[in-house]
Amino acid sequence: MLKDWKPPKHGEKSQVKAELKELREHLLGLQQPLREKGLPVIVLVEGWAAAGKGSLINELIRELDPRFFNVVSPASLPENEDRYPFLYRYAKEIPENGKIMFYDSGWMEGAVRRYLRREITVKQYKAYIRSAVEFERQLRDGGYLVLKLFLHIDQEEQRKRICELKENYETEWRVTEEDIWQHREYKIFQMAYDDFMERTNKPLPWHILDGSKKRPAALEALRLLVKTIERGLEKGRYVGDPFQADFPLIPMPPLSSVDLSPALEDEEYKRELKKLQDRLEALHNTIYRRRIPVVLCYEGWDAAGKGGNIRRVATPLDPRGVDVIPIASPEPHELNRQYLWRFWTRLPRTGHITIFDRTWYGRVMVERLEGYCTEKDWKRAYNEINEFERQLTDWGAVVLKFWIQIDQDTQLARFTDRQNTPEKQWKLTEEDWRNREKWPQYEEAVDEMLQKTSTENAPWYIIESNDKKYARIKALRIIVKALERAVEEHPAKGL
Amino acid sequence: MLKDWKPPKHGEKSQVKAELKELREHLLGLQQPLREKGLPVIVLVEGWAAAGKGSLINELIRELDPRFFNVVSPASLPENEDRYPFLYRYAKEIPENGKIMFYDSGWMEGAVRRYLRREITVKQYKAYIRSAVEFERQLRDGGYLVLKLFLHIDQEEQRKRICELKENYETEWRVTEEDIWQHREYKIFQMAYDDFMERTNKPLPWHILDGSKKRPAALEALRLLVKTIERGLEKGRYVGDPFQADFPLIPMPPLSSVDLSPALEDEEYKRELKKLQDRLEALHNTIYRRRIPVVLCYEGWDAAGKGGNIRRVATPLDPRGVDVIPIASPEPHELNRQYLWRFWTRLPRTGHITIFDRTWYGRVMVERLEGYCTEKDWKRAYNEINEFERQLTDWGAVVLKFWIQIDQDTQLARFTDRQNTPEKQWKLTEEDWRNREKWPQYEEAVDEMLQKTSTENAPWYIIESNDKKYARIKALRIIVKALERAVEEHPAKGL
Repeated sequence: MLKDWKPPKHGEKSQVKAELKELREHLLGLQQPLREKGLPVIVLVEGWAAAGKGSLINELIRELDPRFFNVVSPASLPENEDRYPFLYRYAKEIPENGKIMFYDSGWMEGAVRRYLRREITVKQYKAYIRSAVEFERQLRDGGYLVLKLFLHIDQEEQRKRICELKENYETEWRVTEEDIWQHREYKIFQMAYDDFMERTNKPLPWHILDGSKKRPAALEALRLLVKTIERGLEKGRYVGDPFQADFPLIPMPPLSSVDLSPALEDEEYKRELKKLQDRLEALHNTIYRRRIPVVLCYEGWDAAGKGGNIRRVATPLDPRGVDVIPIASPEPHELNRQYLWRFWTRLPRTGHITIFDRTWYGRVMVERLEGYCTEKDWKRAYNEINEFERQLTDWGAVVLKFWIQIDQDTQLARFTDRQNTPEKQWKLTEEDWRNREKWPQYEEAVDEMLQKTSTENAPWYIIESNDKKYARIKALRIIVKALERAVEEHPAKGL
Repeated sequence: MLKDWKPPKHGEKSQVKAELKELREHLLGLQQPLREKGLPVIVLVEGWAAAGKGSLINELIRELDPRFFNVVSPASLPENEDRYPFLYRYAKEIPENGKIMFYDSGWMEGAVRRYLRREITVKQYKAYIRSAVEFERQLRDGGYLVLKLFLHIDQEEQRKRICELKENYETEWRVTEEDIWQHREYKIFQMAYDDFMERTNKPLPWHILDGSKKRPAALEALRLLVKTIERGLEKGRYVGDPFQADFPLIPMPPLSSVDLSPALEDEEYKRELKKLQDRLEALHNTIYRRRIPVVLCYEGWDAAGKGGNIRRVATPLDPRGVDVIPIASPEPHELNRQYLWRFWTRLPRTGHITIFDRTWYGRVMVERLEGYCTEKDWKRAYNEINEFERQLTDWGAVVLKFWIQIDQDTQLARFTDRQNTPEKQWKLTEEDWRNREKWPQYEEAVDEMLQKTSTENAPWYIIESNDKKYARIKALRIIVKALERAVEEHPAKGL
């Protein structure tokens, strides 16, 4: 990419200036249709230190209505606050429908710097690259228009610019140690950038701009942006096709074959509960210190006993290190973004535990059955979710998923009990009855979900919950075992 | 408070245990009514290091449904991320209606530690105390049930506990340098806690608990919590009365007396615009380095020219350091919290500029006129907003508020133009016409707002905008002047 790159010929100064003006006005006119069609746009601006990324963005937004775009600089976050998965700081900033987000350096810079600083291993670096490809594709498939720019200058040009900045009292502070390090190691950085761009050039291509010429670079960027938006408007919101991916899947039995008879006597339940909760409490302490993040996912039939099960897990945990997130229908600002966004923003920090009471699997259950998304959307979601969860486990998270299973008779008995018990009536809604009528369709969807998303790194567990006590002990045992294994695999550092 | 405090007599062990169990079940039963009535609860747990704040919270939540409460430890945030106003980290965590939030240490600990560490001056410390009182009162007046606990142990008990923790390999890491420092300086801390509690004991009183006895302390806390919630449920949601406060107000003319004839020729406009924008660009650089936060508020009639005015201000700014926030009707999750919450969470970091396109003043305009809040609510809001803005300026922010003024004829002309110009039609809604019919009521509300909230620290400026060019230059001049003054008052540190 960079090594064979030749600077393009640029037009006359006056011509460039006139065309810039014209294109800026044109872009301004595209804002409103973009808003009406609700298309979100991401402009990723990567490039060399001192290449002028900030000025380039300034040139692009000069005439835009500030309510329709935003600029973020994820790199400027303090590194010690980096207790989230690699993509977190980028994913949480994706724009709403109808808006443009400019990233002033993004996931390429984040990955390359950490790799060259040796903060991550080669294996982790490869996982970062893979996740970047997945992230871009998922955004595109979710209807985002994504434009990827790299602002290039050669080593001599970089030297000149750094010197200019250093010589001026007002700008001297802008040159960081890191910039100087990059300049010294220019060749190594070039190899790394090249490598990253080659590996992430599909499905969304990179565009290299000549950073040595400010106006022509802005003109080229504007052209690309206008073209991206116009094509998007013309074609309408893109919906990506389902795709094949090679995840190591664990075979899961159909729900209909699950034996729901297991039960526990009260005495054994109490004894086991105490033992497992004590063990969990101690383990939480350890995973907190070793900074292992944990994500527990609960799905299941209405009245299956999710709430009570979650409570038995949450109670022994230090409340400062655990969050229980009930997931309801998405709010408007959540519907206005890619469907995983509201989960990205709720992930635990390292060492913390997040328990999701319902999850992103709503996509392939309620959203599928109620027609809240297209068929392509939910079919594509199986592998998108597998990718998302692999990004979590690559980061070091323990991800466990529980399907809380009961049969229809048990559900009816619990519904009836809720209906007849004043303190419980609030738990039962019209919707619960409606969902119950669709039991066969749901069962089909759940079976397909279990088949397609029980990966080795983030497995599903079917929890037989006709007897709630049995269900709670089973879930607790699985959690304790998984955390014990995680602790073994993460030896304490420096202790 | 602490110095005269005597530990209470506690009951028999078995009796305490039985009562604890009973009260926990009782609290469990209160969750549902709390949810139905939509009452939010804040439990602030302050106290000595090693007094057992975490265990106390654990005792309180043991039986609770984890979907209805949450625990935060604001103190555990890295201090270097502290680029927001003092109350920010607490205010952003207030619970939604129907939920309980436990603060594992809060604004008392935050203020006292920073004061004793000499990170803040006496003057700043006093401002912190004042803001804590304001914060608590505003929450109460907004319908929050607030319970404030202090978990007390004497120096000898603290010594024992710290030693126990240090002796055990599994717990040794829990004792921080800060804890040991507090133990050494126990008397000084006690004076500071006492002082803070005395100054913040009204309107919401402190409750001191005997931290040396774990179960009795939990029992006492549970009793207080149950009493707080029961009283809240019985009385229904509290709506605070308007109150007098002594803010130095700048007299403002009634809108009807504003001369709207000022206008600018095109040539002068262009020249001034260029000059002011260049100056603003340079100033942004300086305030960024000196970490001065800036909050610009825009309010005004529909079609007054807010958008274009904001654009002329935003364009010369480094987009990485500025955010333009359009404020629309609140979303459900925002309506479920105190009305200032959605502004607290959108404040700039130090060195950044946030431009609000409509603001918290919606409370005393649209919410007042459309009946979205009670009369007490909007009448109380003038001073609540004055307090909020003083908290921002105490933090060091420049706060400027612009009322973009036009007359009715100009509005009609612009509405008609929008109606007749296809590219502009989206800007005009039915609601705009409806609002226009209420011009006299709005004018009365705006006049009252300007009279009551133009404080010396956060003044209003009426911007005559029949001629948009004049309006833009006037706003830019005011901003440039205010930033120049702020830069003079914040000499560069260590440069």
